[in-house]
Amino acid sequence: MNSPEFNRLRNLVNEHILDYMPVIDQKCSTLYDSMRYSLTAGGKRIRPVLMLAAALMCKEKEEIILPFACAAEYIQTYSLIHDDLPAMDNDDYRRGMLTNHKVYGEDIAILAGDGLLSAAYEIMTKHMLLFMDDPERLKRMTRAAFELSKGTGVRGMVAGQVADVENEGKACSEEMLTFIHANKTAAFIKSVTLAGGYLGGADEQLQNDLKTYGEHLGLAFQIVDDILDVIGDEKKLGKKTHVDEQLDKATYPALYGLDKSIDIAMSHLAKARDAMEKYYDEAEVFNCIIDFLESEIIR
Amino acid sequence: MNSPEFNRLRNLVNEHILDYMPVIDQKCSTLYDSMRYSLTAGGKRIRPVLMLAAALMCKEKEEIILPFACAAEYIQTYSLIHDDLPAMDNDDYRRGMLTNHKVYGEDIAILAGDGLLSAAYEIMTKHMLLFMDDPERLKRMTRAAFELSKGTGVRGMVAGQVADVENEGKACSEEMLTFIHANKTAAFIKSVTLAGGYLGGADEQLQNDLKTYGEHLGLAFQIVDDILDVIGDEKKLGKKTHVDEQLDKATYPALYGLDKSIDIAMSHLAKARDAMEKYYDEAEVFNCIIDFLESEIIR
Repeated sequence: MNSPEFNRLRNLVNEHILDYMPVIDQKCSTLYDSMRYSLTAGGKRIRPVLMLAAALMCKEKEEIILPFACAAEYIQTYSLIHDDLPAMDNDDYRRGMLTNHKVYGEDIAILAGDGLLSAAYEIMTKHMLLFMDDPERLKRMTRAAFELSKGTGVRGMVAGQVADVENEGKACSEEMLTFIHANKTAAFIKSVTLAGGYLGGADEQLQNDLKTYGEHLGLAFQIVDDILDVIGDEKKLGKKTHVDEQLDKATYPALYGLDKSIDIAMSHLAKARDAMEKYYDEAEVFNCIIDFLESEIIR
Repeated sequence: MNSPEFNRLRNLVNEHILDYMPVIDQKCSTLYDSMRYSLTAGGKRIRPVLMLAAALMCKEKEEIILPFACAAEYIQTYSLIHDDLPAMDNDDYRRGMLTNHKVYGEDIAILAGDGLLSAAYEIMTKHMLLFMDDPERLKRMTRAAFELSKGTGVRGMVAGQVADVENEGKACSEEMLTFIHANKTAAFIKSVTLAGGYLGGADEQLQNDLKTYGEHLGLAFQIVDDILDVIGDEKKLGKKTHVDEQLDKATYPALYGLDKSIDIAMSHLAKARDAMEKYYDEAEVFNCIIDFLESEIIR
């Protein structure tokens, strides 16, 4: 990512991501190993960085946000492990590494996912216990935790996943495709930017702008992912391409063709950029993610 | 259960368990259906009833606890769905009904479990948003949510599950068996009694007694479950027996034999009863669960 601040925040997440892991008994060290394996498999950390960046715009202290940011990455990691399972997308590789169930078996992979999701809320609520005498921050954190649960639960990510697997191999309407994308990917991305705003105590204007940014970035994110499945480089992506086609998944390129999909993605990215324009240099992290996604699909 | 108050609280849970379900879009109605299927499959509701009973001992209002109690049952239900999956215990029946994946398929069952776990935290944090101007209750709820995440996460239920699947077919030490039981089942049961105490604002003495009760009841609970797998009636239990033997699971009867297992269970139940003795009639709900477990294994 072409931004020193993004890279600084990503490094911060990488440095501390395991610090927040609840202490796991040696007797089930495989659980720890399997969770660590996927937590440190080298993601771009876009969600925790976005949350940190949003809260830092309000001048909140980094260390107060960091547990929540890492918790978001725990949720992201759980969702990838379950998504890769044989009963779901049946992927053998992710980011150039074997998927969790290929290394640890399906049973442990399911439990590692369950463990990461549980740990995310354990991390957040444990952190909240430190602010029992700081009602303002306790409220902000409650709002942020609720926002995350909403974006990643049954009216967010999980809903999108269900619609996604149910529409494999079916003729999919525009409305359904939008529903899948809005929930599978965009809802979580919106929720991390909103949660960051809540944690920082953003005013109404900033909170609205973060929402607009998150919505459009999130939609673009999944469309770009769909596009890369068609035009991307397997080595660079670290996973197989043309998978959506094989699974007959509902995607933008399948419904609109490649060129129109790129146009739609670019239009969402432009709207995301507009939302943060008034913040100039303060929006460096937000803009660099847009630049990155644009560079992925410009041919 | 031979207690009017237990039955009243169980009915309360049954009546409201679906009220707290976040609104799920029609476009993924299968997600709603599959979650509802398992949520209403007729469990005894011991965990939510225990939480309610603990909080009611402190005279907290029922409606303030109920969302947390139902959230605990969402967590319990998720754990059963994932536990029954082919990659885990591979069970076709539970409580006399087909297991979730036998009805909805493995992919939806995994996601229904993920959805229930996410919904549990969505329900709790959404409820907490109603108490933004009641710092005392907001604190109590934060403690309760943390306690539940701990009891059901990677230093509780998930840890126990991992140790359980890893020790199938192995000679299992006494220490490991205790670890599995303490985590797989007892940790969650302890955490609902503790969470109920926190929610109600229990004093130190009551909180300690709830802890002792929960610990011993929880351990007895899993030992009785092991025993019933050997001596239980399939029709009454609504599931196959002799499964542990077939999977070569680490159980009390396998390690100690049946008679000694019954003695150990009875001894934990006696300790649980002692912990609540001083509360006389107020402990009706707590005692009736002990009576029920005793009646299951007395021959």
